[in-house]
Amino acid sequence: MGGNIFGHTFRISTFGESHGAAIGVIIDGCPPGFSIDPAQIQDEMNRRRPGQSAIVTQRKEADQVQILSGIFEGKTTGTPIAMILYNEDQKSKDYSHIQDQFRPSHADFTYQEKYGIRDHRGGGRSSARETAARVAAGAIARQILTHFGIELYAYTSQVGSIKVPSDALIDRSFIEQNPVRCADRITAESMESLIRDIRKQGDTIGGIVTGVITGCPVGLGEPVFDKLHADLGKAMLSINACKGFEYGSGFDGVQLKGSEHNDPFIVEDGVVRTKTNLSGGIQGGISNGMDIYFRCAFKPVATIMQDQESVDREGNPVSIKGKGRHDPCVVPRAVPIVEAMAALVLIDHLLRQRVNLRT
Amino acid sequence: MGGNIFGHTFRISTFGESHGAAIGVIIDGCPPGFSIDPAQIQDEMNRRRPGQSAIVTQRKEADQVQILSGIFEGKTTGTPIAMILYNEDQKSKDYSHIQDQFRPSHADFTYQEKYGIRDHRGGGRSSARETAARVAAGAIARQILTHFGIELYAYTSQVGSIKVPSDALIDRSFIEQNPVRCADRITAESMESLIRDIRKQGDTIGGIVTGVITGCPVGLGEPVFDKLHADLGKAMLSINACKGFEYGSGFDGVQLKGSEHNDPFIVEDGVVRTKTNLSGGIQGGISNGMDIYFRCAFKPVATIMQDQESVDREGNPVSIKGKGRHDPCVVPRAVPIVEAMAALVLIDHLLRQRVNLRT
Amino acid sequence: MGGNIFGHTFRISTFGESHGAAIGVIIDGCPPGFSIDPAQIQDEMNRRRPGQSAIVTQRKEADQVQILSGIFEGKTTGTPIAMILYNEDQKSKDYSHIQDQFRPSHADFTYQEKYGIRDHRGGGRSSARETAARVAAGAIARQILTHFGIELYAYTSQVGSIKVPSDALIDRSFIEQNPVRCADRITAESMESLIRDIRKQGDTIGGIVTGVITGCPVGLGEPVFDKLHADLGKAMLSINACKGFEYGSGFDGVQLKGSEHNDPFIVEDGVVRTKTNLSGGIQGGISNGMDIYFRCAFKPVATIMQDQESVDREGNPVSIKGKGRHDPCVVPRAVPIVEAMAALVLIDHLLRQRVNLRT
Amino acid sequence: MGGNIFGHTFRISTFGESHGAAIGVIIDGCPPGFSIDPAQIQDEMNRRRPGQSAIVTQRKEADQVQILSGIFEGKTTGTPIAMILYNEDQKSKDYSHIQDQFRPSHADFTYQEKYGIRDHRGGGRSSARETAARVAAGAIARQILTHFGIELYAYTSQVGSIKVPSDALIDRSFIEQNPVRCADRITAESMESLIRDIRKQGDTIGGIVTGVITGCPVGLGEPVFDKLHADLGKAMLSINACKGFEYGSGFDGVQLKGSEHNDPFIVEDGVVRTKTNLSGGIQGGISNGMDIYFRCAFKPVATIMQDQESVDREGNPVSIKGKGRHDPCVVPRAVPIVEAMAALVLIDHLLRQRVNLRT
Repeated sequence: MGGNIFGHTFRISTFGESHGAAIGVIIDGCPPGFSIDPAQIQDEMNRRRPGQSAIVTQRKEADQVQILSGIFEGKTTGTPIAMILYNEDQKSKDYSHIQDQFRPSHADFTYQEKYGIRDHRGGGRSSARETAARVAAGAIARQILTHFGIELYAYTSQVGSIKVPSDALIDRSFIEQNPVRCADRITAESMESLIRDIRKQGDTIGGIVTGVITGCPVGLGEPVFDKLHADLGKAMLSINACKGFEYGSGFDGVQLKGSEHNDPFIVEDGVVRTKTNLSGGIQGGISNGMDIYFRCAFKPVATIMQDQESVDREGNPVSIKGKGRHDPCVVPRAVPIVEAMAALVLIDHLLRQRVNLRT
Repeated sequence: MGGNIFGHTFRISTFGESHGAAIGVIIDGCPPGFSIDPAQIQDEMNRRRPGQSAIVTQRKEADQVQILSGIFEGKTTGTPIAMILYNEDQKSKDYSHIQDQFRPSHADFTYQEKYGIRDHRGGGRSSARETAARVAAGAIARQILTHFGIELYAYTSQVGSIKVPSDALIDRSFIEQNPVRCADRITAESMESLIRDIRKQGDTIGGIVTGVITGCPVGLGEPVFDKLHADLGKAMLSINACKGFEYGSGFDGVQLKGSEHNDPFIVEDGVVRTKTNLSGGIQGGISNGMDIYFRCAFKPVATIMQDQESVDREGNPVSIKGKGRHDPCVVPRAVPIVEAMAALVLIDHLLRQRVNLRT
Repeated sequence: MGGNIFGHTFRISTFGESHGAAIGVIIDGCPPGFSIDPAQIQDEMNRRRPGQSAIVTQRKEADQVQILSGIFEGKTTGTPIAMILYNEDQKSKDYSHIQDQFRPSHADFTYQEKYGIRDHRGGGRSSARETAARVAAGAIARQILTHFGIELYAYTSQVGSIKVPSDALIDRSFIEQNPVRCADRITAESMESLIRDIRKQGDTIGGIVTGVITGCPVGLGEPVFDKLHADLGKAMLSINACKGFEYGSGFDGVQLKGSEHNDPFIVEDGVVRTKTNLSGGIQGGISNGMDIYFRCAFKPVATIMQDQESVDREGNPVSIKGKGRHDPCVVPRAVPIVEAMAALVLIDHLLRQRVNLRT
Repeated sequence: MGGNIFGHTFRISTFGESHGAAIGVIIDGCPPGFSIDPAQIQDEMNRRRPGQSAIVTQRKEADQVQILSGIFEGKTTGTPIAMILYNEDQKSKDYSHIQDQFRPSHADFTYQEKYGIRDHRGGGRSSARETAARVAAGAIARQILTHFGIELYAYTSQVGSIKVPSDALIDRSFIEQNPVRCADRITAESMESLIRDIRKQGDTIGGIVTGVITGCPVGLGEPVFDKLHADLGKAMLSINACKGFEYGSGFDGVQLKGSEHNDPFIVEDGVVRTKTNLSGGIQGGISNGMDIYFRCAFKPVATIMQDQESVDREGNPVSIKGKGRHDPCVVPRAVPIVEAMAALVLIDHLLRQRVNLRT
């Protein structure tokens, strides 16, 4: 049973291989009557697009989205919204050497074993190119969330061992002003410098993306399995190269005592809030109205410009040469993907909560 | 739309409030013809049960599981398996004070706001009592997985800031020999000592559970959204108090270079393996045959035996007194829950992969 | 993959074999804050119960429903509602002869082949006893629908070749006043007489149940696959012995011309209505505000008190003797089941439509 | 929550409006390694296509399918298969008059009320053009079913009041040799003549399509809700204009006694079969190895070339003129759609049954 459908109420189905004809997405369950600006969708695509700066892969894909259905005279109609991106600039020859070989820490081996067949060109379905469809769908979700006052953003908070000094002191406005999408000016420079060095070595490096959701109403999240943070976690972990997810106090919080970790309730301007927010905006799996924040760990990109030992399909030892055009660090381009997945989770839960509303 | 159903093919539905009549679970999609030993189910229940040691809550619940359907003459029949646990020893009066007050970092506030009504007794549906139903279902899953050579275990790897020295050097056989369920003898003592101290303070402390799956065949996991680790992550994050999930190299791995992080493929005894296993047994969202390992962060239990400031439903400031019988640290009892959720994810993906098998 | 979960938003999971410990249901996704009267649930159970009149099976089952969760102080809480019925008066010995034999037109053979194992006692999961769980869930759904002005009823419109003269002239108030649940006084007597004759012959007879839904708002039904009538059809066809479903003009309507069949729109009291209602209250899969009506065909019960030729599990010819206590005609007891399934479909679509509502 | 996804394991998502840019489908869960012949897909499209004979609509759509993903070097890869058909020859002006008016027995009114907005051009999403995507997906399913020995076909068995004399005596090879797709030579001529007359009157007429599935293995169908015939019924009822579904003895069977209706089991060539087949190849919701047959009732097409009374969006009485190019009888073109939906249900259940297989 395939796993290419995401969401319960706002459901997306995606398709497409890296070097196939096209990739795309169908959204089923988008509520009707919302204005959608195609330019905003394209803006999100451009943030994810290869070739946008000197520190990302130099592949050239216009990533021009075509909307095929579900929007009439600028508004959603409640029927499925299909979007398509035709593939361009595929250099499939770059991949002919891996037809019968397994690149280390890639999905070549597992796809081959799982399905008994694989489209090896450019990684096929396992390529991160697939995430472009998520960004397109997320851009629709995001525009609708804005109508409900929900905003979200993400930024690079760590590259290698270089971290922003404090998540509490970041400058949101700076995120799109630097190629790393770091939210701290000084740190951004160090990060960019590190990535350039790593690329010169033909190597890659990992990093962390922090996501923040503001304006989320109280009540989103469906206990007991579809807790809001559980669905956010699944969404993030489904992004290529993501190895970990934490929200609120996360892994560090395990060292705290309950008396230190608990967030006291207070009333401010007639609204129940918490004095601190170690809960990360979610309690019992349900949003509590405070900012939701979370962090996603991304491993170093598996494709390196160095020769690596591996085996071929017959089990013979081989040396795989680094080829192609790849990212030295996935994190800068992961930022809009993290946002897109967060938007998809939020709109799904926003719509699911409507079922619970009293009339 | 409720969120009390988990899984796609081996689907469980759970029900029950902490102080209601009963809790339970229906499994739909369990394959027929497998022998099930009820004693093994009860063993798992006993591992999760309150009152099992001096460092957990002293509530007394027999947690006796009754199987109501789906098993005939000791074997699964392919029809739904229902299991029920009647609630006992509820001291609902312990909770009368929170009927109109919101305990800090509990789900009182969010449930009240989400649903407009809540069964406050013992936390109702938000109580960790709910996880007993998961353990019962997981115990069925686990017995079937054993037929396929898949084993899984978990252990306490950190309490507060006390960690096992190395996950590579743990002693699996020791896990059930100490109340903390730590896998290292020396560390276990320190952890137990810490938990006793914390309890004396009327406080609580967090910790980390490490899970390990061995014998998993290559090919489980459904790209692109239902990646094996994404579903494991969701499963773990859906457990009460879980704030983070990582697998393989996890958060620490972001500091590595690709050349350090990649796992070279080798052939051993005719089987493709990886020389290292920073991938954590999963590549491209699909199991690669190596051990799968992951870590789950649990925050300190929110209920503390200290007075805390909060607000009531009218928004008035109140002081909430710590009452009831609670765990000073959730981690020892979380170990069998982590195992149960892992078993449920694995059997679901084992069955899903059957669809892909060539004939 | 099991098929014991029904609905998308108001989802029910059922379990239980005819002669097992119990049968029951979990409802996930029931909206919070609705008052539920347990007596009304029991009333519906009693309408479906064996032994209620001289023309149905004389098995004695109290069918006493226990509510285990999800209702607090008389109101739904938004958490799963579990209900259980313990089995009584199972005369499993009546079924020992079919342990290794296949009753004609029963599910013995197909269950055995599908699963390789079966609980033969009383038909196991294939017994119509399973429908009691549906009626319990439907009784909850129905009470909530009433809050929205949606009413539904069903009646026996045909037994064998005896039909009510006109569905337009039926007397709804008479339905529960006769054991056949016919809605026409004269016809009811003929039907009852026929069923008594059939039973004396040790035989059985089929019939038709007509269902009617009034007060349904415009807009329920989700094109293109989950059309309202498609989900109603599936619901009815999933009831034991149901062989056909039609709505509106149904099979007879194929003989009409478009100019005869089309329902002209008119405005009455400021509301758009149709002058005729051959559409059966649904157009394009979406309710149009007119009465929804449909018909379900039920075959004669397969268990007859006559010897029948068949084969055993080894393929040897055998003669199966009619035994046990069975219904000579399923239709009178099918009426509340049809209503229950209709209620489940309607509430699911009522909740699904909330997603489309503009804000 | 949208309803544009069909199936549990072999899941299709469709999109597209009649006069939008394109329509299409994504298949998720197609098993890998099966050879797919694009020409066979196109053949099925051509059977559904407008303009194929003198008795169907004269719209001209090439209905050329493009495969965008999921097939590599002629074989399925296990990843999503996307197919697209760009729309051509839309004469949207033909529909400008219905922008603010509700055509009788069309979905104009219900879509407008449900969503508050609608793409009126050509009926938008409610147009039967949508079924082209189903046929494309069904053509993939069908090719895979053939590998398992499952064949299926359908034919026109009734138009208006003209019926084939006997379903037992039909000539399958004649179906594609006449524009009505009737399976009886004499009847076909009468039907064609009737349809021509009806069209001259500017009117339309209904009909019945009979479907037959041969070679189905024992064991498909998932009790209790996802019975094979329940899913077939839903599939057929989801096709535009379908008003009824019956299988096996259907509505006529209600007049029979159990002793007449039961199908005795026999053994032929070592295989358990039934002497008669009033069960229609399905018992207890599970295929029993006999031929599966069913019938679908289609109402007369709502669009007629006659003036009709209706109302506009403001509730004013209007006279709607018949315009555009439409089918006088939907049944000939419904035949391949019925086959496609049957194929989709069968492959879904074939794959679902794999979960139950013993190892």
